[in-house]
Amino acid sequence: MSTSTALLTDHYELTMLAAALRDGTADRPCVFEVFARRLPEGRRYGVVAGTGRVLDAIESFRFGEAELELLRRTAVVDDATLEWLAAYEFTGDVDGYPEGELYFPGSPILSVRAPFGVGVVLETLVLSILNHDSAIASAAARMVGAANGRRMIEMGSRRTHEEAATASARAAYLAGFTATSNLEAARRFGIPTTGTCAHAFTLLHDDEESAFRGQVEALGVGTTLLVDTYDITKGIDTAIAVAGPGLGGVRIDSGDLGVLARQARDQLDSLGAKDTRIVVSGDLDEYSIAALRAEPVDAYGVGTSLVTGSGAPTAGMVYKLVDVDGRPVAKRSSHKESRGGRKSALRRHKDTGTALEEIVFPVDDRPEAAEHDRELPVPLVRGGRRVEGLDTLAQSRERLRAALVSVPWEGLKLSRGEPAIPTTFR
Amino acid sequence: MSTSTALLTDHYELTMLAAALRDGTADRPCVFEVFARRLPEGRRYGVVAGTGRVLDAIESFRFGEAELELLRRTAVVDDATLEWLAAYEFTGDVDGYPEGELYFPGSPILSVRAPFGVGVVLETLVLSILNHDSAIASAAARMVGAANGRRMIEMGSRRTHEEAATASARAAYLAGFTATSNLEAARRFGIPTTGTCAHAFTLLHDDEESAFRGQVEALGVGTTLLVDTYDITKGIDTAIAVAGPGLGGVRIDSGDLGVLARQARDQLDSLGAKDTRIVVSGDLDEYSIAALRAEPVDAYGVGTSLVTGSGAPTAGMVYKLVDVDGRPVAKRSSHKESRGGRKSALRRHKDTGTALEEIVFPVDDRPEAAEHDRELPVPLVRGGRRVEGLDTLAQSRERLRAALVSVPWEGLKLSRGEPAIPTTFR
Repeated sequence: MSTSTALLTDHYELTMLAAALRDGTADRPCVFEVFARRLPEGRRYGVVAGTGRVLDAIESFRFGEAELELLRRTAVVDDATLEWLAAYEFTGDVDGYPEGELYFPGSPILSVRAPFGVGVVLETLVLSILNHDSAIASAAARMVGAANGRRMIEMGSRRTHEEAATASARAAYLAGFTATSNLEAARRFGIPTTGTCAHAFTLLHDDEESAFRGQVEALGVGTTLLVDTYDITKGIDTAIAVAGPGLGGVRIDSGDLGVLARQARDQLDSLGAKDTRIVVSGDLDEYSIAALRAEPVDAYGVGTSLVTGSGAPTAGMVYKLVDVDGRPVAKRSSHKESRGGRKSALRRHKDTGTALEEIVFPVDDRPEAAEHDRELPVPLVRGGRRVEGLDTLAQSRERLRAALVSVPWEGLKLSRGEPAIPTTFR
Repeated sequence: MSTSTALLTDHYELTMLAAALRDGTADRPCVFEVFARRLPEGRRYGVVAGTGRVLDAIESFRFGEAELELLRRTAVVDDATLEWLAAYEFTGDVDGYPEGELYFPGSPILSVRAPFGVGVVLETLVLSILNHDSAIASAAARMVGAANGRRMIEMGSRRTHEEAATASARAAYLAGFTATSNLEAARRFGIPTTGTCAHAFTLLHDDEESAFRGQVEALGVGTTLLVDTYDITKGIDTAIAVAGPGLGGVRIDSGDLGVLARQARDQLDSLGAKDTRIVVSGDLDEYSIAALRAEPVDAYGVGTSLVTGSGAPTAGMVYKLVDVDGRPVAKRSSHKESRGGRKSALRRHKDTGTALEEIVFPVDDRPEAAEHDRELPVPLVRGGRRVEGLDTLAQSRERLRAALVSVPWEGLKLSRGEPAIPTTFR
């Protein structure tokens, strides 16, 4: 496997480049803008995620022999273009919303300034990353809100593409999840992982007691025992008999989780296991997490709904050419109109810190400053080089936490509705 | 980036292994079965896809220094387990439905026979691949059916994770799509790619005519011109003025595609461009493709709905331990019951070749043979080695085409309903 990202690209990016090289337009200075025309239906806000992965992917966007050989063999582009690609290196500037920032319809999430040829070839890759990671982070943030401070474990790797799984773990952590089951996410991004045993481990043994004994011997009494392979009440009795009242936790993965959590709490308390935590999992989403708020649940394990964006598996962002040679450009044949010109944005707040509106403006026509304005895009790349001192994943996580505090309370509701704040285009 | 797949794995697969190594159960001979409890809501059939990628991933499932270092540093497992993992190599047998085969609820899609420790660690990775690829192929097959023989172009890379994009292109091609926009899919899987120019190319130029001229000079008159950047009628006039009536195609990416396709056809015909093809794209799914059946459309470009599984982004398959030491095992605490024991399956057909039922049976209790039975699982891996002569992607594509012919006509309807044939468990 090549470590180049250059072929994670649509064919037409390169044929456009070939045509532009030939007719002399490839060097025209351009601005490309990433934005979402709308949020997924009923969502109140979006969470920017993936920017860090985008910057890595741009650095690896190089055409080595393996990439050029494919293009040569399939005759995607002519020789002059192959030569140009062999020397490719991103040399432009990038500004964008930092990871963990909120976005709304029309927010200029990323802005790429480069000659046409240099900028156009990044379109597919930039969108793949931002559309995936932002979709997952946006769903995850709603779940974290619903969990109201309880621990959240991301365990959806098996329900999505194996590489998307690792990126999903990152996006979930960014959005406030506590840990992931995905080991590659630990290696690549330093995210804490967790996990104990599945039903298979219990079934492997001659009886539940042997299985629990084996697990406790290997993982210690602080482990979490999965108690619903056979009968939950018996399972909890056996768990405490084996591990003692210092058992770390029990997990329930099926059935009516609210009822079972209450029964389990009572039973654990009566067995003296007052500090044994209850972890629930099994087709949870933000709504079922919220519905369990009054139950004695200590942690949620979330899989399918997280990695599929809970009904919105892609963020719907686009990468549009908005400026050529300093002249605003825009498609204008249909409802899918875009606003031309290079833009920036700020978020205006009340004195209390509550967000009022997202103001998107042409870079050369900045609105008069108000006291609680916050400029949204930050410089990310200058002359092809990543700006130093960009946020860590931990800082992005904190940024989102703070940004959500500023959202008007209606905007944090799980029910469908309008964006939490309006976008004003100047 | 490491080329090992070993950390694309859930933490608990390895803690289970550690516990099983410690209590002496890791060597028990086991059978793990992959199946889907149900199809996505309203779907009539599923398409098996990803098996070839699974076999590749199993071969790359090795713990090298990079993988071991992470596990050591994070203390996921003890030293004895690290040593065991360092020597890991899959040594078991795998049988499964070949790619392109249909599946129904309970179909034993993949069966892994290996000692517990050897088989359990593959769970997450196997499911990630099959759940993703089968979800995409299942949606793609419905779209191909709706297109009724017209060309289908997969162009959804930008709407999904960058690696999922490549796998999606593969799954779509398996399901009958003609080509993809994704260049990495060409390199990795030999899938034909296609693409010309986007709106950005037109906007880059001083006017549409210069853009079309640049494209035709670079890509030839056989190219497809995107005519909806400004005014479609003017765009088509300009396209034919620049390229002549031998223009390969025009693409319309927005608006009421049925109305616009008819107008475009009339206009092209009146300009003498009777063989110029019409390609439509823009938020198409199986329903809108079907709705365009009476319109003069030559090819469909499909993006978002394809790569998100058209409402069913994951296939919901599970990997369950069904047999330990020759003894059937199954969880039995809830509605999520499984059927224990190693199983096989055959599909029974009428004399006409129409499928009647999926019969799932214990391997040692085969039903009496009927004339038109077809055995479904095939050997894939023996003693850790891939069986020789497995289907190519082209053969899998043909297998699906043939399998769909055998589906009762009600089962090919796009509307929601029951599985096309019932599953009978013996």
